[in-house]
Amino acid sequence: MNDVEKFEALCRHAKEIKYLESTNALLEWDQQTKLPSGGGAYRAEQLTFLAGEIHRRSTDPAYGELLGELSNSELVSEPNSDVGATVLELKHRYEKKSKLPKRLVEELARACSLGQQVWIEAREQDDFSKFAPSLKQLFSLKREEAEAVGYEDTPYDVLLDDYEPGATTREVAAVLAALKDELVPLIEAVRCSDRTPDISILRRSYPIAAQAEFGRLASAAIGFDYERGRLDTTHHPFCAEMGPSDVRITTRYDASFFNSSFFGTLHEAGHGIYEQGLRSEQYGLPPGSYCSLGIHESQSRLWENLVGRSRAFWERFFPQAQSFFPEALKDVSQCEFFAAINDVRPSLIRVEADEATYNLHIIIRFQLEQAVIEGALDTDDLPEAWNAKYQEFLGIQPESNANGVLQDIHWSAGLVGYFATYSLGNLYASQFFDAAESELGDLDQAFKAGEFSMLKEWLNRKVHQQGARCRSKLLGESVTGQSLSHQPLIRHLRDKLSAVYDF
Amino acid sequence: MNDVEKFEALCRHAKEIKYLESTNALLEWDQQTKLPSGGGAYRAEQLTFLAGEIHRRSTDPAYGELLGELSNSELVSEPNSDVGATVLELKHRYEKKSKLPKRLVEELARACSLGQQVWIEAREQDDFSKFAPSLKQLFSLKREEAEAVGYEDTPYDVLLDDYEPGATTREVAAVLAALKDELVPLIEAVRCSDRTPDISILRRSYPIAAQAEFGRLASAAIGFDYERGRLDTTHHPFCAEMGPSDVRITTRYDASFFNSSFFGTLHEAGHGIYEQGLRSEQYGLPPGSYCSLGIHESQSRLWENLVGRSRAFWERFFPQAQSFFPEALKDVSQCEFFAAINDVRPSLIRVEADEATYNLHIIIRFQLEQAVIEGALDTDDLPEAWNAKYQEFLGIQPESNANGVLQDIHWSAGLVGYFATYSLGNLYASQFFDAAESELGDLDQAFKAGEFSMLKEWLNRKVHQQGARCRSKLLGESVTGQSLSHQPLIRHLRDKLSAVYDF
Repeated sequence: MNDVEKFEALCRHAKEIKYLESTNALLEWDQQTKLPSGGGAYRAEQLTFLAGEIHRRSTDPAYGELLGELSNSELVSEPNSDVGATVLELKHRYEKKSKLPKRLVEELARACSLGQQVWIEAREQDDFSKFAPSLKQLFSLKREEAEAVGYEDTPYDVLLDDYEPGATTREVAAVLAALKDELVPLIEAVRCSDRTPDISILRRSYPIAAQAEFGRLASAAIGFDYERGRLDTTHHPFCAEMGPSDVRITTRYDASFFNSSFFGTLHEAGHGIYEQGLRSEQYGLPPGSYCSLGIHESQSRLWENLVGRSRAFWERFFPQAQSFFPEALKDVSQCEFFAAINDVRPSLIRVEADEATYNLHIIIRFQLEQAVIEGALDTDDLPEAWNAKYQEFLGIQPESNANGVLQDIHWSAGLVGYFATYSLGNLYASQFFDAAESELGDLDQAFKAGEFSMLKEWLNRKVHQQGARCRSKLLGESVTGQSLSHQPLIRHLRDKLSAVYDF
Repeated sequence: MNDVEKFEALCRHAKEIKYLESTNALLEWDQQTKLPSGGGAYRAEQLTFLAGEIHRRSTDPAYGELLGELSNSELVSEPNSDVGATVLELKHRYEKKSKLPKRLVEELARACSLGQQVWIEAREQDDFSKFAPSLKQLFSLKREEAEAVGYEDTPYDVLLDDYEPGATTREVAAVLAALKDELVPLIEAVRCSDRTPDISILRRSYPIAAQAEFGRLASAAIGFDYERGRLDTTHHPFCAEMGPSDVRITTRYDASFFNSSFFGTLHEAGHGIYEQGLRSEQYGLPPGSYCSLGIHESQSRLWENLVGRSRAFWERFFPQAQSFFPEALKDVSQCEFFAAINDVRPSLIRVEADEATYNLHIIIRFQLEQAVIEGALDTDDLPEAWNAKYQEFLGIQPESNANGVLQDIHWSAGLVGYFATYSLGNLYASQFFDAAESELGDLDQAFKAGEFSMLKEWLNRKVHQQGARCRSKLLGESVTGQSLSHQPLIRHLRDKLSAVYDF
């Protein structure tokens, strides 16, 4: 085989792995949305089997050999080209995975599948003890994973790299620390303001059928394509792709809270728009894959917060919201509504937190899981540690574990090292939005006219179609001309909040 | 390896194939019920890939060697024991599949997946020409399949054996001919009666939400377990299992026709009850698999017709039906309703046909597909041939292909040789029901009291838990003490219809 033939064989192999991964994504989506309660045990077996198959192919020595040869060929002379990035990125993943024994991969898959089912029950019954053994096992397996791969600084680096390739714990901790240092006085300024948005208007009766329809309408308006995706209901909202034109988002409804499903839907639609914007013909290969979870999250946060919580957006959508929810909103002004959805106030549930305090929720989880992975904290002590951190950072404590340590699906699904990417996403979102406005001009007029495609197409071009040809750090720099920083986010928050709270 | 170790290796291999097959079942169920319209092309690729994987493992020479060795061992001294049947049945499947080239298997999978999507459109648009190329290709591939496997009498034998292992075209044609000979005068007797049930009462307004709830209630009452299954909406109703406790049925609703979804739901629930009644610990192995599609259909027909269309059943359910559909049924008596749902009258849509003429729909399809496979009929001429047969057998012709040759999903999904099993099911259903009543006594009192578990448990024991340890012919004989015959069905129909139509 010459290099070109080898490269074709490589792509074929990667695309076959993707058939299994996308099938796996369907099994998982189905488990969250449709699986009969009795079907859990066998679904866990199916997922375990498939994980083993994916691992076997991903670590096939013949595949490794191909990657080794190609990474020494002319083809990688441009590391960020389609071909170069394909070889180098697949090689990075191969090397990482090859270090994991099949037994560990299968145990993790089984523990995650069963863990999620146990978590759902434990959360419903507000019974941490029910989930505790699964949680202990999961963290112990993740630590084992880090040891198997190896690290220089901290085992947490290995886990972080799964979600934000190339990022280090040290760098991330530093940027989050800087963010926190500026957030705390900003949140304090809000607290000291005499203005208090009336958030009770968001807690009125919002019939679920109307929420579903309105959420669908808004997510379609910003560009989520329902011919290439769908929306379902789950415990914990997520976005999953199981094909280049099959991107599924989920949400959960609370009949007496507007934000939960509406901003959740915009958020997941933002993820979905990213997936739908990737290059289909490169599906299953790095140039057609998302860059990192931080970049993924930047897309969801951008649509959720920078668009969906903007004044211009509600110029367009508030009259429609009033017609969908006449009971709840008939006596509410657009200005009151805008203040309410931008209210900043310590709260307990991450996915319902405001744009500013949200990052404190993340930093808590980032610190806790780092401590567990580094052996400084036992999983059995997580509820107490969780509550203590909430007291320290936000001045409040959950009255139940269901609203505390049990609220997120992540750990039950083995997603350790993942949380930080949410705040990285907030940082990138502000930087991308600034860059878009500096190229396209002020976007408010477009938003007021219900025109979002200009921004979407800019993101398609600048971010989505770049895929994973370079790491997030480089992508951010090349799109914005700036390195990663907390300042654009802080500036954005300060501008908006100083207007809402008049400081 | 000793024989026991070999047998364990065999079971492991078979269960791994089942992981892939049950995953495949989910991909297909999802395609029918949830897949976004844009997702079809990639789903076809996934199914093609998975079909190839299943075929590769099902025809793995090492697996064949294991089967060869075990089939000469002591373990098969009792061919209908768990162990014996596992070896012999898997060997039969292995030998059949090994004869199919991987290329053909993959082409078939692709053609079926795309064929179903084309069929849905062609049917919606009533445009046979749109579906014609797919149909031609599908039948040609099925003929190729029969040639690859080889046959003595007719290529159709090979296809029939896929669904009714061990049955021959000759035998099936004979029993269907005998059935037809008695059906025709019986239907003629109905036609000559002065009584005409008022079937317009079934064509009133039956709101879909109420139909869904009532169908769910009735299917749960007869024993379909919703903790181990679910019910969704599709174009063409089906039942699919994707795990020992994950059995999914589908139905379609017509807001102005009661029968379509109600009896369809009971029918699919009957299939589901069979799947849920199989031995879980043998899942993926012949003793934990259905015996044949004829036996499968006997279970759906038994619950749909012998239970669901009985007078005793409606003693229980008619008052509930009146409360679900007060507008439609307030002025209808139980007796009028019972006559209407047992009305016998030539009609165009198989799945909505009555218990008696239904078999003529089947015999038409059986004869047409046999003719195509044997080269006596071109697929392009199917619409004309279809219409001519309907004229000949039922005295009516469809006004459109959508209500004619395009009405069934089967051919688009490559299911050729399948239709006959529907009538075999009707025959077995009557024989099983007679056997149950001769052991358990008259079941009417139980049905009137809403008590169906006695019958369900009898079927669990006598039929479901036997799995595929023996062929359908032998199973029928051992459960009923009789060989396959058209007479119990004819007797059952004559008893009921002579009362309804007074002849």
